[in-house]
Amino acid sequence: MIAAAERRLGRGGADSDPTERDRGVAALDRLSSLLAGDMQSVNRIIVDRMQSPVALIPQLAGYIVAAGGKRLRPLLTLAAAELCGYSGSRHHKLAAAVEFIHTATLLHDDVVDESERRRGQSSANTLFGNQASVLVGDFLFSRSFELMVEDGSLDVLRILSRASAVIAEGEVLQLATTNNLGTSETEYLAVASAKTAALFAAACEIGAIVANRPSADADALHQFGLNFGIAFQIVDDVLDYSAHEALLGKTIGDDFREGKMTLPVVYAIDRGNDVERAFWRRTLEDMEHREGDLDQAITLIQRHNGFADSIGLARKLGVLAIDALMTLSARPMRGVLASLVEFCIEREF
Amino acid sequence: MIAAAERRLGRGGADSDPTERDRGVAALDRLSSLLAGDMQSVNRIIVDRMQSPVALIPQLAGYIVAAGGKRLRPLLTLAAAELCGYSGSRHHKLAAAVEFIHTATLLHDDVVDESERRRGQSSANTLFGNQASVLVGDFLFSRSFELMVEDGSLDVLRILSRASAVIAEGEVLQLATTNNLGTSETEYLAVASAKTAALFAAACEIGAIVANRPSADADALHQFGLNFGIAFQIVDDVLDYSAHEALLGKTIGDDFREGKMTLPVVYAIDRGNDVERAFWRRTLEDMEHREGDLDQAITLIQRHNGFADSIGLARKLGVLAIDALMTLSARPMRGVLASLVEFCIEREF
Repeated sequence: MIAAAERRLGRGGADSDPTERDRGVAALDRLSSLLAGDMQSVNRIIVDRMQSPVALIPQLAGYIVAAGGKRLRPLLTLAAAELCGYSGSRHHKLAAAVEFIHTATLLHDDVVDESERRRGQSSANTLFGNQASVLVGDFLFSRSFELMVEDGSLDVLRILSRASAVIAEGEVLQLATTNNLGTSETEYLAVASAKTAALFAAACEIGAIVANRPSADADALHQFGLNFGIAFQIVDDVLDYSAHEALLGKTIGDDFREGKMTLPVVYAIDRGNDVERAFWRRTLEDMEHREGDLDQAITLIQRHNGFADSIGLARKLGVLAIDALMTLSARPMRGVLASLVEFCIEREF
Repeated sequence: MIAAAERRLGRGGADSDPTERDRGVAALDRLSSLLAGDMQSVNRIIVDRMQSPVALIPQLAGYIVAAGGKRLRPLLTLAAAELCGYSGSRHHKLAAAVEFIHTATLLHDDVVDESERRRGQSSANTLFGNQASVLVGDFLFSRSFELMVEDGSLDVLRILSRASAVIAEGEVLQLATTNNLGTSETEYLAVASAKTAALFAAACEIGAIVANRPSADADALHQFGLNFGIAFQIVDDVLDYSAHEALLGKTIGDDFREGKMTLPVVYAIDRGNDVERAFWRRTLEDMEHREGDLDQAITLIQRHNGFADSIGLARKLGVLAIDALMTLSARPMRGVLASLVEFCIEREF
């Protein structure tokens, strides 16, 4: 299985053949349909628990929750619990808690980024204002902890409160790297690991906690989520330059215009000559943008294999994620999760 | 004691004699000095736990924490625990958790309000930017839950996660009342109760939890904190029009310029004639401000006893707070807390 996964992750890629991509999409569909019943319960809890006598809260929360997205993180909690042989319903509430944390960070992210689009729609802060976005984020965050307290596991509370602190650290670290041409691959990976992968890791790990599995299983699921999460973020950052806007559901080139130091750019700058460096300094550091700059950025990244090497690193992390998974019992869910990793790395949107 | 408190709260007020005010200040000083050793431990935890490898986090958190403030909320936790006869050290960590929640809401508040001053200094968002303020707020909020998890009481986690959700609800409700001339006294009190008093109540209640006191004591401390907190917010809102800027440490008239519907204004609008209503509509609803408007607002509020009636309501709530306190054991701390309530209501800064 690992060898097969390595083979798969080693080739293919953004220009892999369509049947391979279809198998990838099928992996996400298969996961969603395997967990459809559980996910319905999770969605019911999400809708139920974002209610408040203060009308603006369910309005705004409903807007961002309805916008949907892949619900990848709660799916990971459900899948991890299933993989650990759990058959109760505690994981529904906890998956909802994970999604609330994610939604809260999205709301705060959009305020921070001044994004105007999110998942193909106007972002909540554009529609409801920054103030409401910050506060409804706070509400969902608090509600998430209320759900965990109702569940009653201090281990889960420890894992998710730690993850939340790490996410915030990652976001602050990202602020410090933004507009900073000196950002290294190591610093980029530290940001991705904290702001994205920490929640993937926690979402998976709590699956082992509800199933009362030994700590080796919790650790393996943590490692799976962590490596998957970093790979996921790398691909996200590649797609911000290379995806079709209609498929991605948000504007292409956002990261470029915001001066974010993502991996493809880090590679391109590191390998570029002085003229190229001047271009990056003007666009990313001084934020002086002219017509055609995004195309030029893409050209430079491609010249230095910035996209290919980023995807290459994502694939290596994908292999590590699947390796970690392979230490767990050989249930069908294991293969589904392995395919999900591959799909998320090879996706084009 | 209650009768004495009622007598005291019934008279005095913003124009009470100086000796009475001195007694009030003495109450806060006495509380601080009684709890000085505990507070030192709390401060050590606060400084220790706002550390992060991401340098901007302790910088920004340190800035707002060093700015100080009265540390009223953690003092309440310490005092409540002492009043319940608690002699351990668990309350230090929990008092720090309470202060972290408060600091996080201040950081998010300043972003929301676009405040430029906080506690007599430039507010954190002016100095470090909105983005960092939102994220460091998130960090402190998460860190607060980590501290509670380390303590390990699910009751404390329940109380403070609930309070956090209610605070966010209160802040959102305040957004909905801002610029809204139709805001009633009831709505104002709902906002004050949620955004301010919920944390006062929780801070007090957890004192009973660490001391393993019966739920009647926890309820009494909750009621004490709730009524005290609403009274505290009312006085804060009066002072935003009437305090000396140098003493208050922030700009006078902020609420007016932001169109906030605080109690003195609610009373003045409710009791004003059509000409006055037009003034309030222009200044608070349409936010068109001219030279001399703040003075005019103060004149109108005074004409309709807006300040006096607000302080009058604060005093009634102060009596309720002290009543709740009187159901607890007659330790010296009880009298100190009662004096603290009086001080906070009669303070002029």
